[in-house]
Amino acid sequence: MAKPVGRRGETRERVLATALELFAEQGVSGTSLQMIADRLGVTKAAVYHQFRTKDDIVLEVVRPVMERLLVLLEEAGARPASQERRRFVVHGLIDLVLAHRRLLGVLFGDPYVDALLKSHVETSGHTDRLTVLVVGETPSPTDLVSVAVFGGGLVSVGGDPNLAGLDDGTLRRELRGAAERLLFTEEVARVP
Amino acid sequence: MAKPVGRRGETRERVLATALELFAEQGVSGTSLQMIADRLGVTKAAVYHQFRTKDDIVLEVVRPVMERLLVLLEEAGARPASQERRRFVVHGLIDLVLAHRRLLGVLFGDPYVDALLKSHVETSGHTDRLTVLVVGETPSPTDLVSVAVFGGGLVSVGGDPNLAGLDDGTLRRELRGAAERLLFTEEVARVP
Repeated sequence: MAKPVGRRGETRERVLATALELFAEQGVSGTSLQMIADRLGVTKAAVYHQFRTKDDIVLEVVRPVMERLLVLLEEAGARPASQERRRFVVHGLIDLVLAHRRLLGVLFGDPYVDALLKSHVETSGHTDRLTVLVVGETPSPTDLVSVAVFGGGLVSVGGDPNLAGLDDGTLRRELRGAAERLLFTEEVARVP
Repeated sequence: MAKPVGRRGETRERVLATALELFAEQGVSGTSLQMIADRLGVTKAAVYHQFRTKDDIVLEVVRPVMERLLVLLEEAGARPASQERRRFVVHGLIDLVLAHRRLLGVLFGDPYVDALLKSHVETSGHTDRLTVLVVGETPSPTDLVSVAVFGGGLVSVGGDPNLAGLDDGTLRRELRGAAERLLFTEEVARVP
């Protein structure tokens, strides 16, 4: 028997939380509205009442991350170009990743999610703006690779089992340190 | 009409190449044996003759990467622990990523592929051995985060559009430089 559905906002939050659980276990592609309904103990119609498609759920789960990223881009864009601005952006990204540590571990890097975001959210523009804010308009190969490694690393941090034991404060401090060495250090020992 | 199927080895290679194309376009979850057959212009039975399941195809595509990784682990394990060994492992990983640049961009980070590899290939053991070879048996939080960022970055390099314009030689040099700064540099400017 399907359980009675609670107040609308409450159900909505429960659908989102349950969807994220299933995404973590099965991947986004392997999760259906029916599975979300079954896990919640409600009918598929009750889920459908809140979200018409799985894609709507994914976009809603990702929305706070994107909103926060936009705020960071706006705030950084309003500052004059400087080493301080670069650091402001990098530290802002680290805080963003920490605030959504689990979510990023589950969703980012998932090709289904990547494709969905590309078609529904202006993400490539965000990445370009971030790159410009950190390394300027005419980045060298060193800049491009440093940013790519740091960005790829940052996105993977949420899902890395080796880091699961580190608390947010330690992870923040260590990610800032890694950013200093990778992005803000003149090359000390270049390998021939 | 389905085209005639060529010699066995040839068809096998064509199936693998076509599967990789489709994985890049649709994701692994979004690709079926039928789609691979349609793209090749052969019957599904012809594909099935080579590979019983899509998972068999994914594992076959990934096999050369895993074999090369194992060779690297063996060679590194035979050397005495030293800064040179750490560098040997890191440079070996960079060369591995460059040799399979496109493949890694398509497959790694895909949760379907991750789950498949976890259940079919001893991957978590490889990651643990790599971590020990680079940062030793009792890594500090700094070691763990540095390795996680570099590993996450390295895996994402193949699929990063910002790096598509860099040739392999430039990318190798810059990844080695990034590894030096991130993994082999005492912290120069730790942020408070």
